Amino acid sequence: MGCEAASALGLRVAVLAERPDDAACAAAAEVVIGTPFVADDLEALAAVCPVVTFDHEQVDLDLVSALAHAGTAVHPGVAALELAVDKVRMRTVLDEAGVPVPAYAVVESGEAGHLDPRAIDAVEAFAAGHGWPLVLKAARGGYDGKGVWPVEGLAEAEGVLAQVGGQALIEELVPLDAELAVMVARRPSGAAASWPAVETAQVGGVCREVLVPGRIPPHVVEAASALGQKVAEIAGAVGVMAVELFWSDGSLLVNEVATRPHNSGHWTIEGAVTSQFENHVRAVLDLPLGSTTPQHPHVASVNVFGGPAGQDPALLLPRGLAVEGAHVHLYGKSARPGRKLGHVTVCGDDAERARAAAWAAAVALGTPVPEGIEPPGTVRS
Amino acid sequence: MGCEAASALGLRVAVLAERPDDAACAAAAEVVIGTPFVADDLEALAAVCPVVTFDHEQVDLDLVSALAHAGTAVHPGVAALELAVDKVRMRTVLDEAGVPVPAYAVVESGEAGHLDPRAIDAVEAFAAGHGWPLVLKAARGGYDGKGVWPVEGLAEAEGVLAQVGGQALIEELVPLDAELAVMVARRPSGAAASWPAVETAQVGGVCREVLVPGRIPPHVVEAASALGQKVAEIAGAVGVMAVELFWSDGSLLVNEVATRPHNSGHWTIEGAVTSQFENHVRAVLDLPLGSTTPQHPHVASVNVFGGPAGQDPALLLPRGLAVEGAHVHLYGKSARPGRKLGHVTVCGDDAERARAAAWAAAVALGTPVPEGIEPPGTVRS
Repeated sequence: MGCEAASALGLRVAVLAERPDDAACAAAAEVVIGTPFVADDLEALAAVCPVVTFDHEQVDLDLVSALAHAGTAVHPGVAALELAVDKVRMRTVLDEAGVPVPAYAVVESGEAGHLDPRAIDAVEAFAAGHGWPLVLKAARGGYDGKGVWPVEGLAEAEGVLAQVGGQALIEELVPLDAELAVMVARRPSGAAASWPAVETAQVGGVCREVLVPGRIPPHVVEAASALGQKVAEIAGAVGVMAVELFWSDGSLLVNEVATRPHNSGHWTIEGAVTSQFENHVRAVLDLPLGSTTPQHPHVASVNVFGGPAGQDPALLLPRGLAVEGAHVHLYGKSARPGRKLGHVTVCGDDAERARAAAWAAAVALGTPVPEGIEPPGTVRS
Repeated sequence: MGCEAASALGLRVAVLAERPDDAACAAAAEVVIGTPFVADDLEALAAVCPVVTFDHEQVDLDLVSALAHAGTAVHPGVAALELAVDKVRMRTVLDEAGVPVPAYAVVESGEAGHLDPRAIDAVEAFAAGHGWPLVLKAARGGYDGKGVWPVEGLAEAEGVLAQVGGQALIEELVPLDAELAVMVARRPSGAAASWPAVETAQVGGVCREVLVPGRIPPHVVEAASALGQKVAEIAGAVGVMAVELFWSDGSLLVNEVATRPHNSGHWTIEGAVTSQFENHVRAVLDLPLGSTTPQHPHVASVNVFGGPAGQDPALLLPRGLAVEGAHVHLYGKSARPGRKLGHVTVCGDDAERARAAAWAAAVALGTPVPEGIEPPGTVRS
């Protein structure tokens, strides 16, 4: 989607991809085969790209740092990336800067398979103050719910920590009124713009739908947007940044951040004057940011997942596109049960109608309706 | 732009391009190097594409026909293409079907350089009925004002016809109240949808701006859309089709047609629920068409041309993107003075403000303001 936005501006994107059949290769002007964990591969990319950016945070910060020192413009920079790569660093930096976050403690779980007993003491002490259940998070390597474990008691916590290895976070389980996300675009100069905060619905840590504005009242949208911009500034982010928030008992708490275009911002492609992808491209090239104003009173975006039979949603396009107003995005990835393969956005004046249509199209494209989500209308079959 | 729309749907496009640095290659998933005038090149394209379509009509109808007979789905088909390729065929087919067209006559000008004297007699007879000036058009090979000559008298007509060769049209010079265009999307089944008719401004036969709805009153928009759908049906078009119209003294006359995405439909990318490019892809793949409803009361789209110094508009993006609300599209073509290099679209509630912003961005990107166009505001420098 970033390549499509860059192409519209007449810009050429080269992607670093592990295989020529990776989905991004079809949309990129140029392809460099390799991985971000090999210095030579990064250098091959830098040789054809004056500016390097990212669509995930599974990177080696030392290699990225070396790339920047060798003279390539790397946006976001290493300091901002570090916040997205390392949950412990993210929590502590934001906490120390006065950003509201869930109650937490940092533990050293030792090497994987060799649990440091002091980690268990730390969990016990934290639980004494905050009660069970609580949440354990690996500092690194998590995404889409991976690396996050709600635990009910000490034995379960011990089992998790024994496998994690390295630093981990212990956090209170925040009672949620809603989950929110704010996308912020920020230029090297610090000029920034945020899209309105949206409501996200996660199942098992995986985003299933995004509603704009969803159940979020205007004053909370405003507070969340301001908080998002503050976090982007603290992070020194360049490009777009996602700030995921808990809304709990009238308060906003920062949960996670990502320094890249993010699932919670896909709605901006049709729903806002400028998409997160276009503003990411503009920001990392230090071009003026486009307007982040929404174009419709309501927007619903529902993710497309592979169904149990693993059928390719591309083969279901005749059904998905038959849904009035459905903007279908398929990512060209090979279909597997449970794999995120695309999304559908519907804009309109009526929240429930937009949500019903987006779910109808996603289901028509093979998406199973997960437990915990109740789509409006008669979508569930 | 077609590749970008297909990519969003997760579809792979292969382009037949003469050179690997042709602009479309950067956006396509696959590139076949060749030309549509070489059977082997067309076959190489067909070998990787179950469906073949077109972004221009400079094709060899016999070769395209052979491709279709060999089993490739070719949309639009040869009969529809013929109307776009051959102005004489277009005029006579539409005229015979009862579509209003300018008064015309067909002449045989003989071989190029050997003017058939009967052609001059025909011009004289036509002028006796319709007066001077009149318009001569080559049957084939014209686009963007090429192949069209307004002539003031017989000597000038003789000079033109001596060079044209083959069939030509003689036409009345229609006194214009406005020029309009209608884009129609049509599936193989005949299911069709049209976007609202728009006002276009041409200078020297080249489109400079598109205004939606411009000065066109609603009843004329409706009549034009109906006429556009009728023409698409007569043509048997599959994909999108542009129908360019004259609005003259309360009547609509069909001027030109193109059986492909067209400059007068670029506004649909941001201005309508579904763009002409997405609906072209949907139509040629026989997928359900998306809504053609406009998303804003007013849309202005202004073409970006290379200025006299031939400066690359990509280098002027910092200025062009600074214009609030400007959706900039650059085509990645090498800059030359007078070459069409992109377009800018602005949507909004206010017609003049949208037009002023679109011109401001186009000018910031290096576009000279042509004689005959008076942009609103203080754009002209």
